[in-house]
Amino acid sequence: MWSVDDHLEDILGAIRPLDPIDLQLPDAQGCVLVEDVTVPVALPPFDNSSMDGYAVRVADVAGASEDYPAVLRVIGDVAAGSGEQRLVGPGEAARIMTGAPLPPGAEAVVPVEWTDGGTGGGAVTSMRPAGSAPEAAGGEVRIHRPVEPRAHVRERGSDVQAGDLALVEGTVLGPPQIGLLAAIGRGTVRVRPRPRVVVLSTGSELVQPGEELGEGQIYDSNSFALTAAARDAGAIAYRVGAVTDDADELRATIDDQLIRADLLVTTGGVSVGAYDVVKEALASVGDEDEPGSGIDFRTLAMQPGKPQGFGSIGPDHTPLLALPGNPVSSYVSFELFVRPAIRALMGLKDVRRPHVRAELRTDKALTSPAGRRQFLRGAYDAEEGTVTPVGGSGSHLIAALAQADALIVIPEDVTSVEPGTETEVVLLG
Amino acid sequence: MWSVDDHLEDILGAIRPLDPIDLQLPDAQGCVLVEDVTVPVALPPFDNSSMDGYAVRVADVAGASEDYPAVLRVIGDVAAGSGEQRLVGPGEAARIMTGAPLPPGAEAVVPVEWTDGGTGGGAVTSMRPAGSAPEAAGGEVRIHRPVEPRAHVRERGSDVQAGDLALVEGTVLGPPQIGLLAAIGRGTVRVRPRPRVVVLSTGSELVQPGEELGEGQIYDSNSFALTAAARDAGAIAYRVGAVTDDADELRATIDDQLIRADLLVTTGGVSVGAYDVVKEALASVGDEDEPGSGIDFRTLAMQPGKPQGFGSIGPDHTPLLALPGNPVSSYVSFELFVRPAIRALMGLKDVRRPHVRAELRTDKALTSPAGRRQFLRGAYDAEEGTVTPVGGSGSHLIAALAQADALIVIPEDVTSVEPGTETEVVLLG
Repeated sequence: MWSVDDHLEDILGAIRPLDPIDLQLPDAQGCVLVEDVTVPVALPPFDNSSMDGYAVRVADVAGASEDYPAVLRVIGDVAAGSGEQRLVGPGEAARIMTGAPLPPGAEAVVPVEWTDGGTGGGAVTSMRPAGSAPEAAGGEVRIHRPVEPRAHVRERGSDVQAGDLALVEGTVLGPPQIGLLAAIGRGTVRVRPRPRVVVLSTGSELVQPGEELGEGQIYDSNSFALTAAARDAGAIAYRVGAVTDDADELRATIDDQLIRADLLVTTGGVSVGAYDVVKEALASVGDEDEPGSGIDFRTLAMQPGKPQGFGSIGPDHTPLLALPGNPVSSYVSFELFVRPAIRALMGLKDVRRPHVRAELRTDKALTSPAGRRQFLRGAYDAEEGTVTPVGGSGSHLIAALAQADALIVIPEDVTSVEPGTETEVVLLG
Repeated sequence: MWSVDDHLEDILGAIRPLDPIDLQLPDAQGCVLVEDVTVPVALPPFDNSSMDGYAVRVADVAGASEDYPAVLRVIGDVAAGSGEQRLVGPGEAARIMTGAPLPPGAEAVVPVEWTDGGTGGGAVTSMRPAGSAPEAAGGEVRIHRPVEPRAHVRERGSDVQAGDLALVEGTVLGPPQIGLLAAIGRGTVRVRPRPRVVVLSTGSELVQPGEELGEGQIYDSNSFALTAAARDAGAIAYRVGAVTDDADELRATIDDQLIRADLLVTTGGVSVGAYDVVKEALASVGDEDEPGSGIDFRTLAMQPGKPQGFGSIGPDHTPLLALPGNPVSSYVSFELFVRPAIRALMGLKDVRRPHVRAELRTDKALTSPAGRRQFLRGAYDAEEGTVTPVGGSGSHLIAALAQADALIVIPEDVTSVEPGTETEVVLLG
């Protein structure tokens, strides 16, 4: 019998992060950076105005006040994106917009609110749009306040300098990191891609939702739940419809899917029955001369999720996890083993769900078989620091699973947990 | 001047959740359910075996032991998915698989581990695969232990009963909920779709990352960061390349995009400059006779993010948020206003990022202008319950933003925050 920890360790020991590729920035969202990114050009790349106003020489506005304004000749507009600029000479000002380059000769920017905006009247609150009042870019402006040198100027390189380290290898690219990469001019970036995960369920009893249920049949839910869970974990997930309990058909389907799989996940057919087709089809796929090749079927000291398979298959040694078929068993197994495998393929450091400790809220003691680590569905209350079991311990209670947001962990050596006991809890999403 | 809260309230008051549609189960992931879903057929739909073993009559195995096994005639296999079953008569057993329907006459299931598996030898640990040993479904089986009535039988309806409420209106469909819907046979489900959000940046100074930077130009980062953030919030996001500061071109681009937009987000051009094209192009789009139509440009009592626009545009009154152009201002504005708007369109109840209180870790007091709510970038430590400022208060420090995972909130009436003070923190992602 394998312990939960040994099985996970075996999986994570065998799985290598996917090879990095260059992706366009939007496609790299959620991926792990595999290069240190340095800044090729300073940000901002040039001294620029932090306000809408007038670019001036400091001496020209010294002592200016509303009663005794400095009157300067406006030589034109400096809009954001302007190329070469005219020199601002003594007694001159240029109307300048936020983000526009500080023109030569100018030493500071006077916000438009400290001027008459070229109107000849009192202080204004904004400029008139260039489109509707192009004449405002000429004539005179009255400045009502002096400024210090470099006032309202963002210095070249004040955000980052060329050569600075922008992002380190291993960073997960969320929206602000994507923004920073764009800002420093990176159109593509080297990351590990999202793993492509193929999910297939097995069982001759399985019918697709929306179709008619015949005698002895049930609906396929595993392929839907696990495809969604794989997507949630960061993968590009492909759902393959349920495969009947026929070893040849299953093998052919898996061989077909290998071309688009970085990881294969099957459900069902791994127990001790006579129709456990996954076990039958995959128990002998390994190459004896090649260490680590083939699928190993195991009994785990856990509940639910006792029978499990893990190994690799096909010419590329694509990892495959074979989970039990019961919906709750397969979902719990996914959370414990497949999700970490997906995140290891992505190159993430932190592959496990967060674990916390919480006080057990229950009327009577929970029981658990000796020698098995039990995972019960629970509702976690972060504010109270408590967890309440949802549904029973039966592994088929998929309705309860849909109400749970946590797994309550009962260790192997514990057979009874009293109400109020501090217990380990795995937080789900 | 508008307060942050009033502006958000105005936005949320105007935004209606999107009309519900029927979506295929995999497409409904992350969406909000708009119907109470009841269970059409009990789960499991029939009494079935929870083990691989033998379906028997209880009287036939009473008193059985390893030394004195009950010997029963095996009448055949009951695999999962089997249709009509043969009656299990007195002295008979059917080999049965996990999930297979309990055949008529049988009252309980004996696990295969409590039998000789039909081998005539000692106790076995598994059945031989039906494919490789079809003869194992016939002959005799020795049973080593008695069973109680209904032992190892999952009762019809023991998970959910027909008519039970499976999921209530308002539920967000994660993987377990998708699994439950599939299990009860739902191929499609009525949900609010993901909103389609069109993001466009404005500015003649903007160049696409990867291209050459000319004099006075900078890279467009807002459209990348906000498209990623919209996707992160649950939207289907479309990035429109930067539009130059030309009111007619901007208006034409927006009109073009309306067809695929449930929400429009622009950045830049909302301040007091002469080239603030968003303001110029959109200030007069409203229909005076129609209340709530048109875009209202406002000054907010916040830093960064003072100038903001909000309203609706086009024949369908598509909501539009006009954010300031500075990368940090636009990102903070997105978090405070656009993300809640997206989540309101989705029909989510909880539209805001989590707010917590944390102890400020800093060497010297933070300062903030009176009358403005300031949002500083911070690094939050959940274990310590502390937050540390990252970078300065300059709104252009996009490099610092990429290191932050929280916003430190300094209220309007506070101008200085001492080290160690408990402060409000908005957790990002």
